[in-house]
Amino acid sequence: MVDVIVIGTIGIDDIKTPFGDMKNLLGGSAVYASHAASFFAKAGMVSIAGEDLPVEHKELLEKKGICLKGVEFKGKNFRWAGSYEFDMNEAKTLETGLNSLLDFDPKLPDEYRNAKYVLLGNIDPTLQLKVIEQLREPELILLDTMNFWIDTKKDDLMKVIKKVDVLLLNDGEARQLFDTVSLVKCGQQALHLGPKYVIIKKGEHGALLFSDGKHFNAPGYPLEVLKDPTGCGDSFAGGFIGYIAKTKDISEPNLRKAIIYGSTIASFNAEDFSLEKQKQISIDDIENRFKEFREFREF
Amino acid sequence: MVDVIVIGTIGIDDIKTPFGDMKNLLGGSAVYASHAASFFAKAGMVSIAGEDLPVEHKELLEKKGICLKGVEFKGKNFRWAGSYEFDMNEAKTLETGLNSLLDFDPKLPDEYRNAKYVLLGNIDPTLQLKVIEQLREPELILLDTMNFWIDTKKDDLMKVIKKVDVLLLNDGEARQLFDTVSLVKCGQQALHLGPKYVIIKKGEHGALLFSDGKHFNAPGYPLEVLKDPTGCGDSFAGGFIGYIAKTKDISEPNLRKAIIYGSTIASFNAEDFSLEKQKQISIDDIENRFKEFREFREF
Repeated sequence: MVDVIVIGTIGIDDIKTPFGDMKNLLGGSAVYASHAASFFAKAGMVSIAGEDLPVEHKELLEKKGICLKGVEFKGKNFRWAGSYEFDMNEAKTLETGLNSLLDFDPKLPDEYRNAKYVLLGNIDPTLQLKVIEQLREPELILLDTMNFWIDTKKDDLMKVIKKVDVLLLNDGEARQLFDTVSLVKCGQQALHLGPKYVIIKKGEHGALLFSDGKHFNAPGYPLEVLKDPTGCGDSFAGGFIGYIAKTKDISEPNLRKAIIYGSTIASFNAEDFSLEKQKQISIDDIENRFKEFREFREF
Repeated sequence: MVDVIVIGTIGIDDIKTPFGDMKNLLGGSAVYASHAASFFAKAGMVSIAGEDLPVEHKELLEKKGICLKGVEFKGKNFRWAGSYEFDMNEAKTLETGLNSLLDFDPKLPDEYRNAKYVLLGNIDPTLQLKVIEQLREPELILLDTMNFWIDTKKDDLMKVIKKVDVLLLNDGEARQLFDTVSLVKCGQQALHLGPKYVIIKKGEHGALLFSDGKHFNAPGYPLEVLKDPTGCGDSFAGGFIGYIAKTKDISEPNLRKAIIYGSTIASFNAEDFSLEKQKQISIDDIENRFKEFREFREF
């Protein structure tokens, strides 16, 4: 039995930042998100991987207790190569090899269909819709997306947005989708599309939570070392949904806490490539950083 | 007897934003800052104005209880014309008429020289230095500056920075001065220059306070109406120093509160042109918004 299911990609990444030029890293939205969720709850992945996925990558996920029953292994693995400039704000995609991802048709193992907490990680919205259709009684569905889908599959994306409880966007995506610079207006417009909650991620500046008549402003963590931002958005989403699954509380005050736990894991994630840092930290490290978040926003 | 003195400009501004094209507005760094400070303490201005400054502008300041003994009236007034694009992030200067500002040689009235709380508002650092030399026993000196002085008078600016207690910069200026994108590194480097506290303003994203081993993250206010950002930085600085002067407490926890009060007045200031909004609000409005700041950052 899994507490939370995560749909997204399993990738093999080549990543270049000012701090290194790394090859064949474990990556992908489902990987980062389910690893982050696993600090709090039993996560099951829904994804497709290649038969060439290095065995140590698979072992890393299994060691973390992540259920891979929902992962199909077929052909060559999805690959992504990207680089970051000095300001680390946005990845530049150098190469994408979709490979087996082209054949991905998500089928949920029966036990996954009872999952209460669901993260639709960054992947084609058509696939996200297929997952929603297979769910029996979800309590909370969190949708993550990205500008690529806003550009290429806006209609399908809008269908997904209508069906979810929490919409997660970064600031650039929100401004693009709602054609306004004001994030407050973006948040309000997003609520009109259906979701009960809207979270706008602002990178180093933290995140905003909008819901009916309420507003929460989550601070960013003052990171001194930022080696690779890849997967931070996914880790945020995974940490968030994992904490919700652990506490089984979808009230607004608990969503605030979940945002800080998500931010905590995302901040650790940025400190090294791939899952290097995430795999070293304990729940105590997370709790300590959560306390720091409280202290540096207190007045 | 004044509690806080503010050096800066008195301007007549022409300002164009997507919400209007306004002429002959009261503006200038000393005006916005001393008006904001006056919600909390008796402020005295150190500045120069033209003999052509409209009498209603002067009356507005006097009505607020601002002491103008430190203001010289001479020749034509300093004028500035600026415009903001859709994103309201940065003013584009269309025209500057320095006029009487060219003759400004700040001489503090004797009672100003005993002031404990001093705001060196945005003006030529050579003039800021002259003010410091005339002070008898300042408790806290706050320095505000801008990219123009970093570009043109960096040596003098560095001399001022060494002599102040709190350095205030916006994020762009901090990155320019310290040649790094990391605001955490900017904050740490700025502390090495002499000030005990460094505040980095991030516009809509709030502000950061750095001091020895401590970090404070102040949220931005979720403004729905933003008509004109002119003077928000000055209003922040004025509200900050005014609150410090009122409470006579320069501890780090109290500086955190001062930052929120400064943010509160700055957020009101952005809601209309010139001092139009500031002159309508009461201390109750400020206290209510301060409470909102507490509520929307709570988790």
